[in-house]
Amino acid sequence: MKALDESVFAIVGLGLMGGSFALALRATGHCKTILGITRDSATRVQALANGVIDEASGDLSLASSADVVIVATPVRTIIEQLDVLGAFARPGTIIMDLGSTKQAIVNVMEQLPLHLEPIGGHPMCGKEQFGFSAAAANLYCNAPFILSPLARTSPETIAFARSLVTSIGARPILLDPARHDRIVAAISHLPYMLACTLMASVGELAQADDLVLPLAAGGFRDTSRLAASETTMMLDILMTNRANVTQLLRAFGERLTDLADRMDRQDENGLFPILQNAAAQRRELFQQGIE
Amino acid sequence: MKALDESVFAIVGLGLMGGSFALALRATGHCKTILGITRDSATRVQALANGVIDEASGDLSLASSADVVIVATPVRTIIEQLDVLGAFARPGTIIMDLGSTKQAIVNVMEQLPLHLEPIGGHPMCGKEQFGFSAAAANLYCNAPFILSPLARTSPETIAFARSLVTSIGARPILLDPARHDRIVAAISHLPYMLACTLMASVGELAQADDLVLPLAAGGFRDTSRLAASETTMMLDILMTNRANVTQLLRAFGERLTDLADRMDRQDENGLFPILQNAAAQRRELFQQGIE
Repeated sequence: MKALDESVFAIVGLGLMGGSFALALRATGHCKTILGITRDSATRVQALANGVIDEASGDLSLASSADVVIVATPVRTIIEQLDVLGAFARPGTIIMDLGSTKQAIVNVMEQLPLHLEPIGGHPMCGKEQFGFSAAAANLYCNAPFILSPLARTSPETIAFARSLVTSIGARPILLDPARHDRIVAAISHLPYMLACTLMASVGELAQADDLVLPLAAGGFRDTSRLAASETTMMLDILMTNRANVTQLLRAFGERLTDLADRMDRQDENGLFPILQNAAAQRRELFQQGIE
Repeated sequence: MKALDESVFAIVGLGLMGGSFALALRATGHCKTILGITRDSATRVQALANGVIDEASGDLSLASSADVVIVATPVRTIIEQLDVLGAFARPGTIIMDLGSTKQAIVNVMEQLPLHLEPIGGHPMCGKEQFGFSAAAANLYCNAPFILSPLARTSPETIAFARSLVTSIGARPILLDPARHDRIVAAISHLPYMLACTLMASVGELAQADDLVLPLAAGGFRDTSRLAASETTMMLDILMTNRANVTQLLRAFGERLTDLADRMDRQDENGLFPILQNAAAQRRELFQQGIE
């Protein structure tokens, strides 16, 4: 295995995540060459012109000259592309993805030829803007970066992935795929569904009352922010984490019904501790005044 | 009725809202005297020492020497205090509240002696910090400030309230109490309940997995922010807006169940437009890049 500084990288997908990865790699200087693979010809031109990548192609086969392939497309595209990459990546190639769910991807990685070195990855950062134009070299700075090695992943590959992640400023955390998916369902996919549903609920009311949207201020703004996420990307995430997400949605609905029931029967002694505990936990988690 | 500049103000409650109101009034210089009424003796000492108020008392009766009384306590305390104020406020006194629900308060205002001039108020701003120490002179700047006049409220009082609200930098909007309560249930009280329930859901998972909270990043942070609101204040708000809030909670639960059902049966053609519409509405409402 080559050292990081001597490695040829292929980055598949130059959107927010892949583009930022390329920018961060370029900024650190810790690689030999960066190959950019995207179907979007305008992005290829822009990334080449900016010097972010050294070579560009719309075809996955360019990855056959890489030591490390970073797959930074939506989750179900990653799954399709892994199959293709398996057919021509050269022996010893490290293949890491940046997908937001891990179990479905790692399952497919297990099927890759044994001469390849797959490892799952999920940088826990982002924003509601997307595309190469939103990419930034510092997107990964201080972000937790989940690494999900397979049973077959060599210690050398894990060490390489750790130093790669550290080199772009992120914090590597080893986590098995099932546990990862359970956690992100609660802290990321559920909040997204709540934001969308809130936007839909308020949007419906807004159709009947033209003062609703002008008055929708701070609280609504923050709570609904995630609704602006890219839908195609999110649908991939949801559909590859269905069991966890649907379980949380149903449990959430039951909690809301319980709150409504308590309000209806004026059970303030029951309501108060529920709301008070939430306030205490939130304040403890994000120290007041720091945000 | 005196001009704004010659009016003696009594502010009942010197927390975030009342304290900020006093600071804003003081900063503009558009009043003669500010009397501060709060049971909290430390706040009285602090507000006097800072020169934010001219006189302080723990007793509501100080309001009998005011031309304008601003009641800035939690909603159900406002309701209790209106009764007391009715007994001794002098004829012609304008009584305005800053409560976050309007129907229950305006109902009680209707019962005040006819020589008083009540008007409902709700400045739509705030933060998750509270108390006099969190108060700021610019809290009301550019905030929508709902005014809910009663049928009995004179045009002069409405005009006075408008210029008062404008003088502290806020934007007055006349709105009847029922419509106000319906709107804020959706854009403020529902998001609060969602934030609390999300914090409770994630908190429960965190008890079983010590990586949950360290990984809870941006999306969760914003969506759960309102959970840190002051519980006692929020419980007053919820219990005086029960019908609207419970209806929204139950409908929200049904929407979540519908989403879970669609995920279970892999109805992506049904899911996509729901999520896509939410994204489009959110992006239209808060232009990307501006937040």
